[in-house]
Amino acid sequence: MFDKVVIVGVGLIGGSFALGLKAAGAAGTIVGLERSGEALARALQLGIVDHAYATPEEALHGADLVLIAAPVAQTGRILESLLPWLAPHTIVTDAGSTKADVVAAARSVLKARIAQFVPGHPIAGRESNGPDAAIPDLYRGKKVVLSPLPENPQAAVDKVAEAWRLCGAIVHQLTPGEHDKVFAAVSHLPHLLAYALVDDIANKAHAGLLFQYAASGFRDFTRIAGSSPEMWRDISLANREALLGELDAYLAQLHGLRARLAAADGPGLEAVYGNAQRARRAWIEAIEAAEKPPTQESGTE
Amino acid sequence: MFDKVVIVGVGLIGGSFALGLKAAGAAGTIVGLERSGEALARALQLGIVDHAYATPEEALHGADLVLIAAPVAQTGRILESLLPWLAPHTIVTDAGSTKADVVAAARSVLKARIAQFVPGHPIAGRESNGPDAAIPDLYRGKKVVLSPLPENPQAAVDKVAEAWRLCGAIVHQLTPGEHDKVFAAVSHLPHLLAYALVDDIANKAHAGLLFQYAASGFRDFTRIAGSSPEMWRDISLANREALLGELDAYLAQLHGLRARLAAADGPGLEAVYGNAQRARRAWIEAIEAAEKPPTQESGTE
Repeated sequence: MFDKVVIVGVGLIGGSFALGLKAAGAAGTIVGLERSGEALARALQLGIVDHAYATPEEALHGADLVLIAAPVAQTGRILESLLPWLAPHTIVTDAGSTKADVVAAARSVLKARIAQFVPGHPIAGRESNGPDAAIPDLYRGKKVVLSPLPENPQAAVDKVAEAWRLCGAIVHQLTPGEHDKVFAAVSHLPHLLAYALVDDIANKAHAGLLFQYAASGFRDFTRIAGSSPEMWRDISLANREALLGELDAYLAQLHGLRARLAAADGPGLEAVYGNAQRARRAWIEAIEAAEKPPTQESGTE
Repeated sequence: MFDKVVIVGVGLIGGSFALGLKAAGAAGTIVGLERSGEALARALQLGIVDHAYATPEEALHGADLVLIAAPVAQTGRILESLLPWLAPHTIVTDAGSTKADVVAAARSVLKARIAQFVPGHPIAGRESNGPDAAIPDLYRGKKVVLSPLPENPQAAVDKVAEAWRLCGAIVHQLTPGEHDKVFAAVSHLPHLLAYALVDDIANKAHAGLLFQYAASGFRDFTRIAGSSPEMWRDISLANREALLGELDAYLAQLHGLRARLAAADGPGLEAVYGNAQRARRAWIEAIEAAEKPPTQESGTE
């Protein structure tokens, strides 16, 4: 399917993409490209990539697909380093958690060659990071959002979509603006809230006592606060406007809930809690229905 | 160990206590007591209890231990119904998520017989509820906080502690006030925050689109919003003062974080996120060290 795939940033996300393509027998060669040698050496050692390069010239030679799986703030710099060696038939995509800023950076760097860049975002993750966390099944049954640009030829979009489907993913499309608004609400805000809670507790005088009694509910609630602070700083800044909008809506919601609590308004609290429980249950049921094994006729992978 | 144990409220919490004692071979008879017959009939059918009663007279006859595992707001009413049939040697404990209000209700009802009531709170749960969710291992390795009263004879406290240890739990002690302050921070506030987020999203015009892209991070963050709205309404009201204090501290934290985001203060955001990640990691490491299988000399269970 792919003669040569280049992974820029061989951590959890890029490494799992490589392993997924390998498991599907879909790539002739997969090479890793990274300035810092440590993760890349480990990825080579683990067999995630077949070759490792610190500079793009040789890495890009003959490549048909490049995945940039690096913090979003680095996308522009990475594209700059790739551009001189980018053949006209090579398609570049990314795995960044924000899209409008990535598209802006890509346009600014690639200019007339923006048609070769198909923005994307796989909706998958694990608590741990780095090449050691990479697994071939990370994307199985998970969504990947592509945000194609008007300049992208359909064949380029199809090629990227196919790579993700070979990893077992379900491919969706949103515009960069839609994407950023959606993920500000369901991903970026929860991360900010979880970080805020753990930091709040950690800064209290009796933090040790508090953590001693934190249990599984707290553990799940704060799991996303175990994510990389640098990555989430970048995402917060990259999607600042949409995130501020969602945060303000949430603050208004919390102030309303505070007023109900202060007034000992039991029915008012129960209405919010009950609506949340029902909405979450309906959502979980929809997920579980969608995650059922595909029937034979849909098994085209 | 126990001739007869009475479980008032045979759902996840009460049922798992019964199953834990049964698995340890520590109870002659376990009986369920509940006004509504459905859950109790199911518990009998599942073998969680040996007998089921709708009224206390026969249930309490010859009992040495009673566990009240019902919403905290019902504790006073339940104790009132038990009091006429409560023998002097019977010890009563509870599994309520708040303690100061439970102690106040118990004092008001039991008066001079308050010495027979040893307040407790097992720190364990699951996403599902009811007798079908009950499992013998729910408390294994989990903490149970007892909040003994000055009036409790040491033998009564020891008896309750022993029952929980037989279920595999680790018994801690906090005063009712300490307990409520701690759990306002690490349990009650996160529940309120999770409910608030899901309700906020569910009320948006494009809620369907948002839920479609909510992923595992959102699922874990909001798991506790799947809990019973009635139960958490009661807990919120019962621990209102401490919860308001924690909510206000969190709101102040969020407003501070909002200011950093609005100012595009990358280092400021990263400092909060990084502190949270480090604190959480240290906490997880401490939990995992504590959850290692006990060495031989500590294996007195």
